[in-house]
Amino acid sequence: MAKMVKYSYEQLKKFCTDAFLKFGFTDEESRIIVDVLLTSDLYGIESHGMQRLVRYHKGIEKGLIKIDAKPEIVFDTPVSAVIEGHDGMGQLLGYKAMNIAIEKAKKTGMAVVTVRNSNHYGIAGYYAKMACREGLIGMSMTNSEAIMVPTFGKKAMLGSNPIAIAMPAEPYDFFFDASTTVVTRGKLEIYNKLGKPLPEGWALDKNGKGTTDAGDVLKNIVAKAGGGIMPLGGETEQSGSHKGYGYGMFCEIFTSILSMGLTSNHTHIGGKGGTCHGFIAINPAVFGDSEAIKEHLSTLLKELRESPKAEGQERIYTHGEKEVFAYEDRMKNGIDVNIGTLAEMVDLCKYLNMNVDEYLGSEASRLTLQKSSYDM
Amino acid sequence: MAKMVKYSYEQLKKFCTDAFLKFGFTDEESRIIVDVLLTSDLYGIESHGMQRLVRYHKGIEKGLIKIDAKPEIVFDTPVSAVIEGHDGMGQLLGYKAMNIAIEKAKKTGMAVVTVRNSNHYGIAGYYAKMACREGLIGMSMTNSEAIMVPTFGKKAMLGSNPIAIAMPAEPYDFFFDASTTVVTRGKLEIYNKLGKPLPEGWALDKNGKGTTDAGDVLKNIVAKAGGGIMPLGGETEQSGSHKGYGYGMFCEIFTSILSMGLTSNHTHIGGKGGTCHGFIAINPAVFGDSEAIKEHLSTLLKELRESPKAEGQERIYTHGEKEVFAYEDRMKNGIDVNIGTLAEMVDLCKYLNMNVDEYLGSEASRLTLQKSSYDM
Repeated sequence: MAKMVKYSYEQLKKFCTDAFLKFGFTDEESRIIVDVLLTSDLYGIESHGMQRLVRYHKGIEKGLIKIDAKPEIVFDTPVSAVIEGHDGMGQLLGYKAMNIAIEKAKKTGMAVVTVRNSNHYGIAGYYAKMACREGLIGMSMTNSEAIMVPTFGKKAMLGSNPIAIAMPAEPYDFFFDASTTVVTRGKLEIYNKLGKPLPEGWALDKNGKGTTDAGDVLKNIVAKAGGGIMPLGGETEQSGSHKGYGYGMFCEIFTSILSMGLTSNHTHIGGKGGTCHGFIAINPAVFGDSEAIKEHLSTLLKELRESPKAEGQERIYTHGEKEVFAYEDRMKNGIDVNIGTLAEMVDLCKYLNMNVDEYLGSEASRLTLQKSSYDM
Repeated sequence: MAKMVKYSYEQLKKFCTDAFLKFGFTDEESRIIVDVLLTSDLYGIESHGMQRLVRYHKGIEKGLIKIDAKPEIVFDTPVSAVIEGHDGMGQLLGYKAMNIAIEKAKKTGMAVVTVRNSNHYGIAGYYAKMACREGLIGMSMTNSEAIMVPTFGKKAMLGSNPIAIAMPAEPYDFFFDASTTVVTRGKLEIYNKLGKPLPEGWALDKNGKGTTDAGDVLKNIVAKAGGGIMPLGGETEQSGSHKGYGYGMFCEIFTSILSMGLTSNHTHIGGKGGTCHGFIAINPAVFGDSEAIKEHLSTLLKELRESPKAEGQERIYTHGEKEVFAYEDRMKNGIDVNIGTLAEMVDLCKYLNMNVDEYLGSEASRLTLQKSSYDM
């Protein structure tokens, strides 16, 4: 069997929706969760789509994610809110929180909503885009299980701590969604599944020394044995390590600190999740004519794309452009699923008594589950 | 003469204050400008203190900076304002704008103020700290002359575009102030003055290839001949170049885009400055008990400092800690001034008919001005 298997968007949607319904989520809840997950695959961010299903599967199985959690607004002002997530599904809490931020920003001009005691919420960018579709600037951040080793440290203390920002522009919205680590854990999982050594400058072993062994790093992360991923900017101050570490802290402030939730170094310990998120919505209309502002941004993005290319390069991308092309391609040609991930999906089918042949095809049903990096 | 000459804080303050008074600024204006400049030197950010004086000198001389500019609020809501700077001194516009943001945030919970047609405003962090001293989260950003080459490009399109954030904590406030390029232009100027080759991974030549020649890069920047500084994350997507480029865009949105001012690639062209800034103030009290939130952040910072060190490392810093130590050291032991910078200060004395011996000492008066990197 090939390393990658292609499925249509519709087929994956059917499989995922039925899986979340089987877990006990409502129709509307399943729709939201699946939209977040599949948007990631459609954008070409393979690390956060189907590859993440196993984490939700295990999270629900272990009771980290509570299907019937009822989120509670514990603090509320015209420009802000804090939501106690009661260990609910991250996507549902994120969707609710960003909608509150959007609603408030439409009234007041801007709003920040934080969430505590949530779970992994998929790609940060999904929620930033929700605001963008309403004509607002959207930002979304999340802390996570500790994976970033601070500059000069050897223990992971901060999460991959992504910061996403989206703002309306033509012909493509500005859309930037990136971890504040040099890469995400998901990227390490992909290298591990492919059996490839990591590039230099990505990860640290348990003594705080650079390493290219993805499996070892993932194992140490799960065992909390030391090591992890470097901040954006790498290992030394000369290459800007302290800056990636600083953006990681920026994310921590707008997630755990302003929600009084668990900081990354305290999440996922002792059977507790505790992930925190932050959502910001800003109406450009509080700075003047929204349409003129949108055009101003569109002009800059166009000038960037059209600026001179380095020797050997053919193209300069603006943020959000690749996602538009990936989306069109995958809607038309299907979504590649790694066979390691597919084996996890087959395992999920069996767990939920879903017919593998029917949902994923007869070839898939012959796959056996390897030890996943999540369980190491 | 040594490469560095030490002056007391008081002596530099007297020199700078009298210089700005001689330029025609009022007592209060001179006080603000000098406080921004010297705070940079006290924090150990040599690139943005006395070393920047020559830019203000030349800016005023060339008419880029207008001493009698009257800033105008062109858009105003309870949570936002846009200020037309009319080419005023950056420090004065920054000080005014952040005070407006602070005042609004105290009433509404949060505010964003943008400024267009300003000039270089010193260290971004100065303004973030203003909000922090009032118990608020402060953010400050500025665009600048284009110096960052976007990923896969060879022409500088964005500025060094720093983002600063400060938030109250004990025993040191969290204080992060960093360019979104891997390093600032000021760092290149220091290497150039010292005649040292640049580290790999910092700068690009006019063809978009990596180079270690600081003088050549600075010359090309001034001539707009191509090349410049890499985004944080370096040259390739593998090391996260697109992320530094994304943070540069984040800064551009909150400065030029939301003020309808000039984007970095259009500033400093044809005798026009046009720098834009953005200021954000957020009251933690709109998320709960401010004191509890401050303690929560202080705990995380303490845990980071106390976390295990990498082999060969003795200390993990949290952001803002180094500045506290530098401040104490320089207040007690004086501030080192590079002799290249000192020669520029001597030249400024002569330009303003100030007595060099009296302000900077008799040794300084024997220095002759070398061609500064600003004029190349």
